[in-house]
Amino acid sequence: MAGRHFVKFTFLKLDPAWRRRLGDERAQDKREFAAACNDFAEEHFLRAYSLVGTRGDCDLMIRMACPRLEPIHELHVLLNQSGLMRWADISHSYLAMTKESVYSDEPTPLEPRPGSDSKYLIVYPMWKKREWYRLPEEERMRVMRDHIAVARRFTGIETNTSYSFGLDDQEFVVAFDVDDPAEFLDLVQELRGTESSAYTEFETPIFTCISASIERALDALDGEVVRAPA
Amino acid sequence: MAGRHFVKFTFLKLDPAWRRRLGDERAQDKREFAAACNDFAEEHFLRAYSLVGTRGDCDLMIRMACPRLEPIHELHVLLNQSGLMRWADISHSYLAMTKESVYSDEPTPLEPRPGSDSKYLIVYPMWKKREWYRLPEEERMRVMRDHIAVARRFTGIETNTSYSFGLDDQEFVVAFDVDDPAEFLDLVQELRGTESSAYTEFETPIFTCISASIERALDALDGEVVRAPA
Amino acid sequence: MAGRHFVKFTFLKLDPAWRRRLGDERAQDKREFAAACNDFAEEHFLRAYSLVGTRGDCDLMIRMACPRLEPIHELHVLLNQSGLMRWADISHSYLAMTKESVYSDEPTPLEPRPGSDSKYLIVYPMWKKREWYRLPEEERMRVMRDHIAVARRFTGIETNTSYSFGLDDQEFVVAFDVDDPAEFLDLVQELRGTESSAYTEFETPIFTCISASIERALDALDGEVVRAPA
Amino acid sequence: MAGRHFVKFTFLKLDPAWRRRLGDERAQDKREFAAACNDFAEEHFLRAYSLVGTRGDCDLMIRMACPRLEPIHELHVLLNQSGLMRWADISHSYLAMTKESVYSDEPTPLEPRPGSDSKYLIVYPMWKKREWYRLPEEERMRVMRDHIAVARRFTGIETNTSYSFGLDDQEFVVAFDVDDPAEFLDLVQELRGTESSAYTEFETPIFTCISASIERALDALDGEVVRAPA
Amino acid sequence: MAGRHFVKFTFLKLDPAWRRRLGDERAQDKREFAAACNDFAEEHFLRAYSLVGTRGDCDLMIRMACPRLEPIHELHVLLNQSGLMRWADISHSYLAMTKESVYSDEPTPLEPRPGSDSKYLIVYPMWKKREWYRLPEEERMRVMRDHIAVARRFTGIETNTSYSFGLDDQEFVVAFDVDDPAEFLDLVQELRGTESSAYTEFETPIFTCISASIERALDALDGEVVRAPA
Repeated sequence: MAGRHFVKFTFLKLDPAWRRRLGDERAQDKREFAAACNDFAEEHFLRAYSLVGTRGDCDLMIRMACPRLEPIHELHVLLNQSGLMRWADISHSYLAMTKESVYSDEPTPLEPRPGSDSKYLIVYPMWKKREWYRLPEEERMRVMRDHIAVARRFTGIETNTSYSFGLDDQEFVVAFDVDDPAEFLDLVQELRGTESSAYTEFETPIFTCISASIERALDALDGEVVRAPA
Repeated sequence: MAGRHFVKFTFLKLDPAWRRRLGDERAQDKREFAAACNDFAEEHFLRAYSLVGTRGDCDLMIRMACPRLEPIHELHVLLNQSGLMRWADISHSYLAMTKESVYSDEPTPLEPRPGSDSKYLIVYPMWKKREWYRLPEEERMRVMRDHIAVARRFTGIETNTSYSFGLDDQEFVVAFDVDDPAEFLDLVQELRGTESSAYTEFETPIFTCISASIERALDALDGEVVRAPA
Repeated sequence: MAGRHFVKFTFLKLDPAWRRRLGDERAQDKREFAAACNDFAEEHFLRAYSLVGTRGDCDLMIRMACPRLEPIHELHVLLNQSGLMRWADISHSYLAMTKESVYSDEPTPLEPRPGSDSKYLIVYPMWKKREWYRLPEEERMRVMRDHIAVARRFTGIETNTSYSFGLDDQEFVVAFDVDDPAEFLDLVQELRGTESSAYTEFETPIFTCISASIERALDALDGEVVRAPA
Repeated sequence: MAGRHFVKFTFLKLDPAWRRRLGDERAQDKREFAAACNDFAEEHFLRAYSLVGTRGDCDLMIRMACPRLEPIHELHVLLNQSGLMRWADISHSYLAMTKESVYSDEPTPLEPRPGSDSKYLIVYPMWKKREWYRLPEEERMRVMRDHIAVARRFTGIETNTSYSFGLDDQEFVVAFDVDDPAEFLDLVQELRGTESSAYTEFETPIFTCISASIERALDALDGEVVRAPA
Repeated sequence: MAGRHFVKFTFLKLDPAWRRRLGDERAQDKREFAAACNDFAEEHFLRAYSLVGTRGDCDLMIRMACPRLEPIHELHVLLNQSGLMRWADISHSYLAMTKESVYSDEPTPLEPRPGSDSKYLIVYPMWKKREWYRLPEEERMRVMRDHIAVARRFTGIETNTSYSFGLDDQEFVVAFDVDDPAEFLDLVQELRGTESSAYTEFETPIFTCISASIERALDALDGEVVRAPA
């Protein structure tokens, strides 16, 4: 199945007042949220991440991919039924699609790569300067080759590029599977010296997301472990 | 009737606390909101869209058009009577008017095109750089012709341009009837290489809106289907 | 009385929770607010406007003018006593003064023109680029004459310029009496081509305000008409 | 005592919900706040100002000065005990220090000038462009002399400059004792034409603060006068 | 142990409503928060600071360092269990890592320096302009040497640089141990004249943090001293 996929990143921020609810209520809120995610994950790609301790403006991220947009819409409708969404805001949201790249040779760029079990996913939206798009194609190719050559020396990092032109505010959403954040930091710092870096307009916010099961990402919200009701 | 129309885009964001209300109360809140919209739609142009799953800063959009501003004002007064507006904020609002274009040959630019039953409406406010307005007219004409020539190759997309100079913050509100978001993404990415793109100052936020009846757009807010009371 | 006046534009945004109050409470809240405004209007200039349906970040605007600042302060102290201000925020606020212009020949620039019964008032704060102020005076005069010449062809529009240098964030607050928004839109679009436009730094937000009695502007907040208590 | 002083400007914004409290509770909240301020003022410099009617994003400002930072910290700890801070946010906060100026001859630049009983204090944070700091010293001296020469012609205005480099976001906090806002407006407008003005990066927000006793500034919050309990 | 450390700065802002809780409840909320911090501090680096009186957008900061990210995540999960986080928001958050510097000779750059018992910690995130990264290495070395030479004359200040490239929005988080804020102010002002300063893109917000035990920093939130329950 080599068609293009929609990719959605939904970041949630809990109202601190949610933590004032009774433990049983919070457990129920989390179970309902997890159930909707797990149903979706039976047929589609879904991963969960915790941002507790890495950022302050969001607590949890779910990442979805699907060849059609409707199932992603429907999952969010179901989440709106869950108790958790009575106390949560979507603080950041990125909609994108996969697309064949003219520059890189990412494997299977058109679908999400489910297998990478890295410990972190680092995600950010990106805009390039308009000057970039006015360069001749061979010039852009040369600049990107230089960029890719630097990146390739950092072998522990896998890139997932998706495209948002016209669908959402940003032009790209870039996501990196990372096991060692220090290696990623060194890569990004080294890339600052490449020519391609000068054509970046914006690339924040940068989210360091901790891979987790949806249950563990939910439990990090109030520090309590949910068990199935007896 | 070839007069100019006011066009209004009202984006709503529900307070998560609304979802804590009883199901019956929420159903009533939605019925009141829908009733006001449906009354307006009997005499004027009104369309509804859901943004659940595509963005995080708004949940629902209603799009209105009318030769006079008063009915649009009065609809919003009526909406303020509805239960839903006791729990909702207008997170984004764009006021514009239709106008004959000197560049394009959009059909019936002065009134909304009701018939297009596309699955998505993509909307964004736009500002051009001030340099644009200082170019000689023939130069602007040449640049726009190049832009339009690219756009025409993407046959599944219909453009609706409206003008906000002096009426609202932005200069234009651009809306596209789209069935295949991937086609629109490819168009926008290709347009980045045109000369006209260099004269764009801002064109965010970009809203991917899912066409829906007002009832369906409201039901997506809490995942529950409203039926007429017995 | 040809002295300079303070001019104040106070934009209110109601907390949606206000609409959850009982109808009688809301009526009382509105009566108290209107009473304070009407008292002020007996001796000073005060006009009210509704923004319901034209913007999302404010619902109501009151515009005051007075040779001294104290009465404007005291009116706002009285408004703070009213029930309405227990549920409202001042979302935008502009303080300015009238001043003789070196460029234009606005009639009676030093005091508010009470008589214009236009249907809309369009208001925005404005900053000019610092380069503007470094131009030789005759150069600025020439640029402004060109600007004014364009504006004069649009005869249905009356300009009210006030000055905020050092008193508030913006440099100017510009307000236009308008009966036909389309005419104003066309004027602003045409002015984009003038030299003066290139010296504008910012001129947003732009508020399309609907002229109303204070009572009607208040009634638009919840769609209910207040009558004097029996 | 010619040492340098810390200067602190704390702007408060009341939650509109505070005005829903009973009159007695509000009176008590205000008395506790005033008591903490008056205790501090016995040994240190403290002034209060009302912004009711001049801005929308703050209601009250207290201005403190002290050779050490600890008493300012301790005053804010005491304010946190007061009922008022259970309903108030610090919407703007500026920390600065006095310092001898190389350009001006402000009297006693190292300590606050308590005596000026002007009716208004106009305050704003300021940043200069980095180019300014790369100019040769004699060049900066020349530019500043020109600036000061203009300012001196406006004799009703007294300048208080304080420095925030490295202590807070802004570089300077500038405060002006003003009796006639129109005179200050004219001064700021005229300064736009000086060379020094071109080196200003930002100088907003601009706060027109009305001098008041702490009791009067507090009474402006709800329009009710507090008297000592019987 | 010369490995690199993760460094985290978590700034908290209390909801004013927290101060409406009963004294005993607040004491319990603070004890739970302190207990989690003190447990972490037994094995890892943790310092607490008060911002009461120096800023308005945060009240308290905790600074952590650890060779692995997981314990920092787990501490924040535990904090989410505490009563205080039911009423607090993380208003600012900075994630970074230590790294050997090519320019400076900071002692032990790879681990936090626990011993410095200075009275203040001044912290800010920093971004350099992209032009900086395109300079030849010897040029950057020369510019930084000049910068460091100025800084060395201010002997009371110790610098702690950490790196955030790709992990968080900013490129660097810079923290200074300071006993005399006036000395730091003079240093920063003098650095404005160096060449390196021209390559700074952003360096705000700037936080003046008052060193305190976690208990004292918590007590500053409501002005009440917590004692262990009898």
